[in-house]
Amino acid sequence: MEKLLERIIAECRQFIPQGHVATYIPELANVDPNQIGICVNLEDGKEYTAGDFQVPFTMQSVVKPLILLQALMDSGIDAVRALVGVEATGKPFDAFNYSDQALTGAHINPMINTGAIALCTLIRGETYEEKFSRLLELTRRLADNPSLCVDEAVYRSEKMTGNKNRALAYMLKAYGMIEDPVEDILDCYFRACSITVNCRDLARIGHIFAKHGVHPETWEHLFPAEYARYVNATMATCGMYDGSGEFALTVGFPAKSGVGGGIMSAVSQRMGIGVYAPALDKHGNSVAGVQALAKLSQELGLSIY
Amino acid sequence: MEKLLERIIAECRQFIPQGHVATYIPELANVDPNQIGICVNLEDGKEYTAGDFQVPFTMQSVVKPLILLQALMDSGIDAVRALVGVEATGKPFDAFNYSDQALTGAHINPMINTGAIALCTLIRGETYEEKFSRLLELTRRLADNPSLCVDEAVYRSEKMTGNKNRALAYMLKAYGMIEDPVEDILDCYFRACSITVNCRDLARIGHIFAKHGVHPETWEHLFPAEYARYVNATMATCGMYDGSGEFALTVGFPAKSGVGGGIMSAVSQRMGIGVYAPALDKHGNSVAGVQALAKLSQELGLSIY
Amino acid sequence: MEKLLERIIAECRQFIPQGHVATYIPELANVDPNQIGICVNLEDGKEYTAGDFQVPFTMQSVVKPLILLQALMDSGIDAVRALVGVEATGKPFDAFNYSDQALTGAHINPMINTGAIALCTLIRGETYEEKFSRLLELTRRLADNPSLCVDEAVYRSEKMTGNKNRALAYMLKAYGMIEDPVEDILDCYFRACSITVNCRDLARIGHIFAKHGVHPETWEHLFPAEYARYVNATMATCGMYDGSGEFALTVGFPAKSGVGGGIMSAVSQRMGIGVYAPALDKHGNSVAGVQALAKLSQELGLSIY
Amino acid sequence: MEKLLERIIAECRQFIPQGHVATYIPELANVDPNQIGICVNLEDGKEYTAGDFQVPFTMQSVVKPLILLQALMDSGIDAVRALVGVEATGKPFDAFNYSDQALTGAHINPMINTGAIALCTLIRGETYEEKFSRLLELTRRLADNPSLCVDEAVYRSEKMTGNKNRALAYMLKAYGMIEDPVEDILDCYFRACSITVNCRDLARIGHIFAKHGVHPETWEHLFPAEYARYVNATMATCGMYDGSGEFALTVGFPAKSGVGGGIMSAVSQRMGIGVYAPALDKHGNSVAGVQALAKLSQELGLSIY
Repeated sequence: MEKLLERIIAECRQFIPQGHVATYIPELANVDPNQIGICVNLEDGKEYTAGDFQVPFTMQSVVKPLILLQALMDSGIDAVRALVGVEATGKPFDAFNYSDQALTGAHINPMINTGAIALCTLIRGETYEEKFSRLLELTRRLADNPSLCVDEAVYRSEKMTGNKNRALAYMLKAYGMIEDPVEDILDCYFRACSITVNCRDLARIGHIFAKHGVHPETWEHLFPAEYARYVNATMATCGMYDGSGEFALTVGFPAKSGVGGGIMSAVSQRMGIGVYAPALDKHGNSVAGVQALAKLSQELGLSIY
Repeated sequence: MEKLLERIIAECRQFIPQGHVATYIPELANVDPNQIGICVNLEDGKEYTAGDFQVPFTMQSVVKPLILLQALMDSGIDAVRALVGVEATGKPFDAFNYSDQALTGAHINPMINTGAIALCTLIRGETYEEKFSRLLELTRRLADNPSLCVDEAVYRSEKMTGNKNRALAYMLKAYGMIEDPVEDILDCYFRACSITVNCRDLARIGHIFAKHGVHPETWEHLFPAEYARYVNATMATCGMYDGSGEFALTVGFPAKSGVGGGIMSAVSQRMGIGVYAPALDKHGNSVAGVQALAKLSQELGLSIY
Repeated sequence: MEKLLERIIAECRQFIPQGHVATYIPELANVDPNQIGICVNLEDGKEYTAGDFQVPFTMQSVVKPLILLQALMDSGIDAVRALVGVEATGKPFDAFNYSDQALTGAHINPMINTGAIALCTLIRGETYEEKFSRLLELTRRLADNPSLCVDEAVYRSEKMTGNKNRALAYMLKAYGMIEDPVEDILDCYFRACSITVNCRDLARIGHIFAKHGVHPETWEHLFPAEYARYVNATMATCGMYDGSGEFALTVGFPAKSGVGGGIMSAVSQRMGIGVYAPALDKHGNSVAGVQALAKLSQELGLSIY
Repeated sequence: MEKLLERIIAECRQFIPQGHVATYIPELANVDPNQIGICVNLEDGKEYTAGDFQVPFTMQSVVKPLILLQALMDSGIDAVRALVGVEATGKPFDAFNYSDQALTGAHINPMINTGAIALCTLIRGETYEEKFSRLLELTRRLADNPSLCVDEAVYRSEKMTGNKNRALAYMLKAYGMIEDPVEDILDCYFRACSITVNCRDLARIGHIFAKHGVHPETWEHLFPAEYARYVNATMATCGMYDGSGEFALTVGFPAKSGVGGGIMSAVSQRMGIGVYAPALDKHGNSVAGVQALAKLSQELGLSIY
């Protein structure tokens, strides 16, 4: 397996020049685009790695499945379904233009910014610091990595430049979908996006989603199977923004990407995969990362379709 | 003329039940919907009035032509044109859904919220208090009424509930169209919307626009004719939200309505008209007010088309 | 006046290279882009001309006000209003994307293709040949030119390539807004677009609209004033596609353009203007033609705003 | 298994009143809404059935996966990908409003009308009769049912009333995405929609997709596995119109519905399922059919997520 990963990484390097690192904050713009790493987490937590699998990066949108999971764990399926929908929007992740008419939950998906921001309100906690702590704790637990923490420079930059997210949040507020102070909710969201992980962390988290909430080594039940299926189904239909249909075709398993360059994948019952390659395509997905997953899926027959 | 106005008011009362007062803040929701008043300002400033012409109400969107005028006077036509477009948007006044792509000035019109908020930044002044003072001063001067001031209760309510406007403003900021702090700009905008006027004030202001910047009594030149044409053309194509085409057909002169129930009209070279009737149609225009203007236009042949 | 027109034509020639002739059919693509002509029709039908004022060209969308007028004359205001709306759409003239929901008349404007196609059904006549004959006859009468006829080559090309109009017409049919066979209606519409005129024809037609239906020489009443105001108001708000707001600002009177390069203008009570310059801007309006009208408007103070 | 199916059918009958049969043609409007049937096709082609599993109905949109498959078999993946995209559109199945800009393949999905109409052109055949014959032959082969044929009354009704599809097809033609005569292509499409099947046919077809092109009894390879994955992935992300996200959550395997009331499902490697219950929800999916699949999925753990 390690040889296969090495070969895939080597072959996919050529796709890096097709993409560009995110540039909306200096912390992301300064990242070396030529990095690429992968980690596969298999039965009993056995890990296989290649390339820059230890390089840390911020989760960005990869944290969205975890926000959704925490909201499900803390408020239940009905509350989540009442707040946000599950349909693909056919629009970019930060789209403004929803309906001509009033905005409703049905227009919102947990895998796009508006939905993830709204779901922060369903995490348990007196304050948004507390809500974020719960989310960070969950992320650490799923990643088996208690040292995970926020990249403070990225967090501050996101907070400073995040006016589109402010606009989305005030829109949610204008339509009565959130009630708490916008800046508090966004603070939680920006911190969540700025949690630093590496490929191993993502592979572990993905494996637990793939195992429907069961830890692959300890067999501990961390969360109900139906929450895992909720998250996996949502990732499968919308996890790669408006590249999700293409990804279903060429890769074929649930995954979530982030503009930090990471992708977390959950291959039903079989494995979790974390990839990192910060040069992004026009949808905001890691170019070389998607290619690496496509090759791995083909070689190992991982498509669920 | 006074008899004509009395008759028109009497005839248009019947349309009031077709509309509803604005309800998004208690100060507007509590207004008596059965009011209707009109004032016509003619050559030499001669005034004719009928009905509730002395009842005060907040300008709301009627202030937009004045924001545009002040921006033109302080920053010039080129700066205004560079910031906001002039095309009808085919969308409601507070629409979110502009383009699938990036927001640009071309999508924005000074007669809708986004455009008016953006234009506040082009008013001269060190602070937004100062900018607002200039705007209030201009409004007082055009209305020949130095006692005009802000309805503090409405202003505070607008500020508290104005999350859709906050969303629009953060969107402008996200696309680099405004730079100053959003809350400062909105504070100026909310104050402007909360300036209290009556039909006589609107008739006087309208008459000066109709006279292309010349005071109808003193013949003083208050602003260049091309600014008046800019404002009038913009009102004619977009002043009544997505009822503007209908209004051109049935009334036929430049006008601007507000959800407070007022409409200011500028009948080219001939007169200014202020009407007030707080029950609104689905577009946000005064139902009985539009009908009164239609009748007046027909009786006196005021259509410019 | 003739000298003024000569000067304006000379000055506006420079704008021609900013535009391009329409290319969707060979008959339009082969037109010499360097032509520019103008005709002004004044009191008593006195004509002033300059440049290529005698060059024939097809009306294209300039025929839309005439379709609207004929529909008004044959079916009355109520039937027209029931079928098509009057609001600016904020969209290109051949836009597909109306509402997410069902298409209704309110989404349609007589100055865009969908509306003009629908209005053909309201012209009186057993057959669409007869309906078209009435429309041609009206055009000839308003232009005082009984020799006006269809450019058969353009008509055949339009008919052959007009698939977007077919799509629009079938959409109208799908929503129950038209009942007759689509190809019959389109045949009438394509013929109408292919009527050949020159600047003098357009100036005469425009003058009658400006005179509210009264022939400027014979003082004959050709149609009711309220139909003229209907057409003029619609041209003022939507006659120049999504350049209508800009045109109101820089020119300031009702006008209708066509991709053949012609623009017909109706300056309230004062004059009709026909211009021709086939190089078009991105909206589909004659580049040099709009500039010529802007200059003329400024020199003679023709803006109605 | 048969008992399970009986129980599910019995339990799901209660959902029928929440829906309505399609009404756009009399042949569908006259169908008895109280029918419900199911068939499961398992290993070695073993069949289990319940309810109205033998009632014939027209495929309608259930034929879309077969059009896609035939296009893949006849023209290859590259040609299909060049013509139509794979992203969810976030819009109803017969949406007009794509982009403000030009229509491109990227806006089109094989599971919505526009995409399926376009794909008819990629089926091999000199004429559209021949293309349709190939499609019918494929459908018969996959269903192991040589007697499948077109419901002529439904076909004629579809053809007569199909103006929205005409509009979509002319739009495709206007943008150069199809070249053949629109009526020929639509004739093929309307015939395809009118092929009559029952639950057993759909279960068999679904099972072959689930088995990646291998016949579950004869082990014959009917088409390449990668075509099956293409079709399955597309069904999973878009097969249930804008109820696809919801379906992924509550059911969790690839399926395609039609307004005739049928749903074909392909449960990866395990089974094919055909359900029929003609009362539809607002998205156009069988109300009771979706519920039956949800229960079956839960009872047997069929979700692939």
